Parts: sequence; structure tokens; C-alpha cells
Amino acid sequence: MTRFPHRHLLGTEALEPAHIQTVLDTADALREVLERPIKKVPTLRGKTIVNLFYEASTRTRSSFEMAEKALSADTLSIATGSSSVTKGETLLDTVHNLEAMNPDLIVMRHASSGAPHFVARHCRSAIVNAGDGAHEHPSQALLDAFTLRQKKGRLKGLRVAIVGDILHSRVARSNLWLLPKMGAQVVLCGPPTLVPPGFERLAKVTHRIEEAIEGADAIMMLRIQLERMSGGFFPSLREYFLRFGLTEERMRRAKKDVIVMHPGPLNRGVEIESEVADGPWSVILDQVTNGVAVRMAILYLLLGSGEVAA
Amino acid sequence: MTRFPHRHLLGTEALEPAHIQTVLDTADALREVLERPIKKVPTLRGKTIVNLFYEASTRTRSSFEMAEKALSADTLSIATGSSSVTKGETLLDTVHNLEAMNPDLIVMRHASSGAPHFVARHCRSAIVNAGDGAHEHPSQALLDAFTLRQKKGRLKGLRVAIVGDILHSRVARSNLWLLPKMGAQVVLCGPPTLVPPGFERLAKVTHRIEEAIEGADAIMMLRIQLERMSGGFFPSLREYFLRFGLTEERMRRAKKDVIVMHPGPLNRGVEIESEVADGPWSVILDQVTNGVAVRMAILYLLLGSGEVAA
Amino acid sequence: MTRFPHRHLLGTEALEPAHIQTVLDTADALREVLERPIKKVPTLRGKTIVNLFYEASTRTRSSFEMAEKALSADTLSIATGSSSVTKGETLLDTVHNLEAMNPDLIVMRHASSGAPHFVARHCRSAIVNAGDGAHEHPSQALLDAFTLRQKKGRLKGLRVAIVGDILHSRVARSNLWLLPKMGAQVVLCGPPTLVPPGFERLAKVTHRIEEAIEGADAIMMLRIQLERMSGGFFPSLREYFLRFGLTEERMRRAKKDVIVMHPGPLNRGVEIESEVADGPWSVILDQVTNGVAVRMAILYLLLGSGEVAA
Repeated sequence: MTRFPHRHLLGTEALEPAHIQTVLDTADALREVLERPIKKVPTLRGKTIVNLFYEASTRTRSSFEMAEKALSADTLSIATGSSSVTKGETLLDTVHNLEAMNPDLIVMRHASSGAPHFVARHCRSAIVNAGDGAHEHPSQALLDAFTLRQKKGRLKGLRVAIVGDILHSRVARSNLWLLPKMGAQVVLCGPPTLVPPGFERLAKVTHRIEEAIEGADAIMMLRIQLERMSGGFFPSLREYFLRFGLTEERMRRAKKDVIVMHPGPLNRGVEIESEVADGPWSVILDQVTNGVAVRMAILYLLLGSGEVAA
Repeated sequence: MTRFPHRHLLGTEALEPAHIQTVLDTADALREVLERPIKKVPTLRGKTIVNLFYEASTRTRSSFEMAEKALSADTLSIATGSSSVTKGETLLDTVHNLEAMNPDLIVMRHASSGAPHFVARHCRSAIVNAGDGAHEHPSQALLDAFTLRQKKGRLKGLRVAIVGDILHSRVARSNLWLLPKMGAQVVLCGPPTLVPPGFERLAKVTHRIEEAIEGADAIMMLRIQLERMSGGFFPSLREYFLRFGLTEERMRRAKKDVIVMHPGPLNRGVEIESEVADGPWSVILDQVTNGVAVRMAILYLLLGSGEVAA
Repeated sequence: MTRFPHRHLLGTEALEPAHIQTVLDTADALREVLERPIKKVPTLRGKTIVNLFYEASTRTRSSFEMAEKALSADTLSIATGSSSVTKGETLLDTVHNLEAMNPDLIVMRHASSGAPHFVARHCRSAIVNAGDGAHEHPSQALLDAFTLRQKKGRLKGLRVAIVGDILHSRVARSNLWLLPKMGAQVVLCGPPTLVPPGFERLAKVTHRIEEAIEGADAIMMLRIQLERMSGGFFPSLREYFLRFGLTEERMRRAKKDVIVMHPGPLNRGVEIESEVADGPWSVILDQVTNGVAVRMAILYLLLGSGEVAA
């Protein structure tokens, strides 16, 4: 039986390669459930999972909810605005209160880096970090790894270019921790203002997209998070696209069998051209599909026992 | 076995009379489920239905959710505001992403006419139009037809007056396509500014409510959609009520057994007087009740197989 | 078999002691379900419960939803903003429409005192008041009583101090009706501006917290509902804390085995010091845990039949 010795999933930084392997293998087994006519197993029946989202999200919340329902868990979704948060309650009090209702697991997204870690230290519930500020988004990195392995047959020895706003990207950070552990090489690429100083110690860094693309097995484009920008990081969106946009033209320099990834939502014409996003290299929608299976695996490994798919 | 040869329900314009008949007959069979002590059949167990609402809605969303749950489907509800929509994603990208999570059907409401048709052309998922701009609202017209048939025993030969803001009403359009196919006659009535030019080719048009009411078997009042009005369509709400409001006084000219319908929400004292809305002619709440059964029928015909109500 | 002869739960004012006893005993039986590995009983399978919240709420809505799901009911949650309410529909029309969809029970929160009573008089559905203005919040008072009984072994003869903004508090009112019926004595304490005139006929009233605390078996602190204050009730939050805040210092005057309660959300440093809220006296999180069981009991008694926990 595969084993996952963690109570929470807070990030990829603390995961050992064997645990990452376990998540990917479990997701492989669960993916098959999603292709059945009845896409449901009773694995987490009678378990309650709270989705606590302090930031707007369609894709991540939907993916977790679908994973939860496919495993027959009961779900409770709380989004800020309709919550006590507006009444000035502290994060810890909100979570302690939810916890007092005995949910089995809390999936949590928060604008502050470290918020889920803080909560995990003070609570009994299992916590899954669904994105904390610019820090980590571990389920995304795991689904990225799953997709890479699915398309390339392996992670070891792959060269993965991560292009864009590295500074504000929790997706970049979670991938930057995960991929090298699995033997892949990461190349970071973005404007100097959007690559944090010190990251050259963690990965190869370039400010020229052409250089990042060359020889890459996968190109992971990051979203320009306009909503996170307080301005001044680059002259204009047009300028950004000219220097760092992934265009069909630029794809000519890439390996024949390169794949293009993006965590979504896309800014078409900003970080990626539609010809590429919808082109033959794109595995962007496979990432979304795999996301449900990977999240099922995470929930199963944290909560389940017995057979993977009864 | 009844058959419904469509993959989507986008409007009533493309439905053949036999298919409309199938929906109404299936709804008849399913209505009985809703009167059981346990209002639930396992027909769509393990199916996932996404409710994607780009416009606020209580009644339509609730009705679809209840229909989905009565058929044991898993549901995921997404309302704008809490969604990536705020992050500037295109409609097609949002739907492609949802689709990549393998839902079986997407119920969709959007402010733009044709949005669900556009999505249906580009997606594999079954799409149910829950209202697109001023264009169509097919499940409403089907529940209206169901209610008419229930109360009058037939559709053929009925005279149905549709009164109010025809111009902005998707309910009027969907009924205008559906009713004549089933042999009913439609009379449209509203201020000249609120009846689109050309509609006199599709139905009898009058600008006097007294004329519309006379001889009608059913009067379908439309909501004055204040939120859609950019002004100038009529002098004032008071003036509108005086000319087009359905009053007890005006009901005296109607047939003894006429029924009064309204898609809701009501503007009491604007398009309809409380004495009429709550009076003996009113089948407004029957429409709501029937809505759940008709939506169950739609979902069943698009997704189900085997017995209607196990 | 225990019996509960009410169709609705609108307040504690109309409950007889035997009925309160029934709710508490039923909650005792159901609490055990929440400690099972599979926290679910099929008691309300096929029943539909609508949660209609006209005011923001995390804790009460979550607690009801968890209770509903633990009993296997189908739930439909409607929060204002995403509802027809914004289209100007009357409360009664909204509820009549929901009711026409045949839910079995409506849990309702509204800013206006008496709104659920009004609805109950005009509807067939069972109504549970989840808070109406400054009037009643019966499920909170029942969970408070449950917690008191759990910690003290009885209600009879207890002295319970309720401290804070009595004027705006539905929690205070519901407790003020319930506790004396069960033989407990209530002491109300707050600034003169925040204790309604006439309440001295219902309970002992004091404006000194030291006096309220002395000899109390339980201290129930109320939230300063900043969002309800139109100003001028007291000079400043700092001043309020100095006069009425529950501090560790003040706890020295209390009985050794006193318990501290709070309906949440907490304003730490306003009505209660963290040392007290998180201290050994605090049963605040037990109240939350008990809330789910008490709400299960309420739903079961209004809707269920047969065994409590199959």
C-alpha cells in the first residue's frame, strides 16, 4: 500500500520525492474513476470537507469540489464577502470555529503567504493549501508534474522553462521546489523586475525568452496577474508581449515535441498568443482535467483508508 | 421509449413539436417523484452538472438545482463575481476549462444573446440555455406549455396573450416560437416602443390590453425589467400600469376560465395588480412547481438512459 | 417517543419547558453521530432544505448546512445579492416561490424582526428562524442551553450573566425567554443605553459587570455588533472595554467553576480579552460543536419520523 506520512498539504517544499511519487501514482489510479459512466466512488462518504476561499477562484475551487464529490465527501464552500470575515473576525477564530464543527479537512486559499501554515500549526483539522499569496500552490505543481509525466513518460532529465511573472507566482515557487526533487531542470525567465533576486541559486535564470525556450521539453507560461501588480514592473502589456509573449514565431525555435502549459486563467495576447494556447503543443486543458484526479489523490491520501477506487 | 434527438437545449426555435411533446410527457412522469415522501430518484447518480450563472437568479438557479438533486446528480454552482470572470478570462476559456473537468452538462445563463449557442458550437458538453440576453429562455417556455396543458387539457387551439415588454423578453421569444408549433395562437401586446418591429409577422400584435385579453384562454404577463431599461420606453411606471397593468377591473372582460401566468419575479402594481396575481385566475405558483419537473425532464432527456423514475 | 408539537421553530418565547427538554435530549442522541467515522445518518434522505440568508453569516449557515448534510438532506443555499431580492421582489413572493418548489423546510435569516413569523403565517413550509433582526435566534439559545447542561449537569438553579449589547441582541432575547423557563436565573448587564427599558421586569439588571459576574455559573458575553450601531451608544470601544470587557482580572471575582460563553464572532479586546476567550473557563468552541447537534435535533424534530439515528 502506498503511504503519505503528512497530515497537511501546505507546499511542495517539504515533500520528499517518494511522497510526490505516491500522489502521482494515486492520481493515476483515480483518473480512471473520472472516465466511468458513474464518476463516483464511496471512498470519502460521511467525510466533510470545507472549502474556505479568501480569494476569488473558479478553477481551483471547482476542481476541488469536483474531486470531493467524486469521492462522495460532503462539501461546504465558504467565500469571503458572505462570511464573518466582514464582521472583523480573525483568521484563526474563523478556522477554529469551522474546526469546532468537526470537518475532516479544510481546503484553504488566502491572500497572505503562510496563512495555511499558521492555521495548520494551531488546528487539528487537515489543511490543504489551495494557494497562499505569492508563496505556494502545491496542488497546481502536483498536477503540472502529473501532466508532464503523462505527456513525457518521465520527470527525470526534463528541462522545464517557467516564463513570466516569477515574483508574484505561487505556481512558479511550488514548481521550483517540486521539479528539481524529481530530477527535472528548471529555467526561469522573466523581466529582471519580476524575477526575485536570489532565485539564480535555485535555477538557471534568463531574461530572454528565446534562451528559455531553446531545448525545453516543456514551457510553463505564467499569468500576468494584473490584479496583483501595483504598477511599474514593466512599461506596458504590449511591451511585455513583445519581449516575453509566447508566439507561434517563437515556438519555431523550440523542440519539436515541446509541450506548452499554463495554470490559467489565460491573458490571451499578453503572455501567450492564441495560436499557441490553442495549438498542437498546448496541454493546458489536460492540466485542468488532471487537476481533478490529482486533487482526488491528495484528499484520498490525507483522509482515506482502504482501497483507492472501490 | 420516448426519444429526444438533441445534445443541447438552446432554444425552442429549433425544437420540433414531437420533441416538445416528449419533454412535456416526461415531465408528467417525473412530476410524481416530487410528490413522494422521498423526492429523489437515482437516475443521474454520478453525473455532474455545472450551473454557470453570469446573471443573478434565484428562481431559475434554484429550480435547476432542485431538479438536479431530485435526480441525484452532483451539482457545482458558479456565479459571477466569485469567478475568474473578474480576472478577464473569455467566456469560451471559462467553459473550456469547466469542460476539461468532465461535467456531463452545463446549465448556463448569460447577458449576451447567443452566448450558449456559441459555447455549444465549441464544446463537447451538453449545454442548457437558462436565459441568454433578450433571446431565449427555453425551459421557461416549456414549463409554461406544461402548465397550459395541465390547466387547459391541451395546447392546440388555445389563444394566449403575452403582455408587456416584448422587446426585452426572452420569455416572450421562447413562447412565441413554441406555442404556434403546438397549435396555439399568440397575441402580443405592449407599448409600440416595446414590441419589436416585424413581430406582427409572427403573431397578432395589439397595443391595447383590452383587445389582448378578450377571448384569451391564458394571459401571460411579462415583467417590466427595470434593470434592462436604458430609459425612454414609456413615460412612467404609473402610466405603464394605467395602460397595460393587469387589474381586476380588466379581468372582467376576460373569459370566465382564463388563467393568468407570470414568469416572475413580480412587480406588483406595475405590470400586475395583487388582486390578480393572488386571485383565482393565477397559476403563477403552479408554474414554479412545474418548473422543477420540466427541468428534471430536460436533464433526463439530455443525460439519462433507461427508466424515467426508478 | 419524544414529541415536538410545533411546525416551525420561530423563537424560544413560545416553547414549553418539555419541548426544550425534547430538543436537548434529541441533540444528545444525535451528537454521537458526529463522532462516528462516517458522520452521516439517512434520516432526512430525499428531504430538501432551503437556507435563505438575507444577512451574511458563516457560522450559523455552516452549522445548519453541516447538520442538514449529516442527516442526508439535500440543501439549497440562497444568499442575498445573488438573488431576486435585488430585482425588488417582496419577501413573501420570494418565499412563496421557493415554497412552490416543494422544499420540506426553510431556514431563514432576515434583518427585520418578525420576518420569519410573517412568512410562517403565509406559507405551508416549515420555517426555522436563524435570526431575525434584534428579535430571536432560537437555535443559538438552544445550543447555549445544551452547552450549559452539558457543562453544569443541569439548567435548574443556574445563575447566568448576559453581558453586553442587550438592546441589539437576538441571542440575549432568545436566552432571556428560554433560561427562566428551565429554572435558571438571568442577570443582564450592559451600559444603560444598551439595556432596553422594561427588561428589569424580566431579569435582574445591573450596569456593573463586577456585580453580574459575582456568583454567576456562566457568563455569556455578547458581541458588540458594530455593524448594527448607528452610533452614540457608548463613548468609544476603549471605554466600553474598560467598563464592560471580560478580563482575566475580572475573572478573579467569579466562581471557580464559572464557564464563559460567546455566540461569536468575537471582537477580541472589545467585549472580551483573549486571555479569557482562550482560557480555561471558555466553552466557546464547545458551543460551536454543540450547535451542529442541536440543529440536527431541530431539523429532525420538525421533519423526521422514526428512529433518531438509524
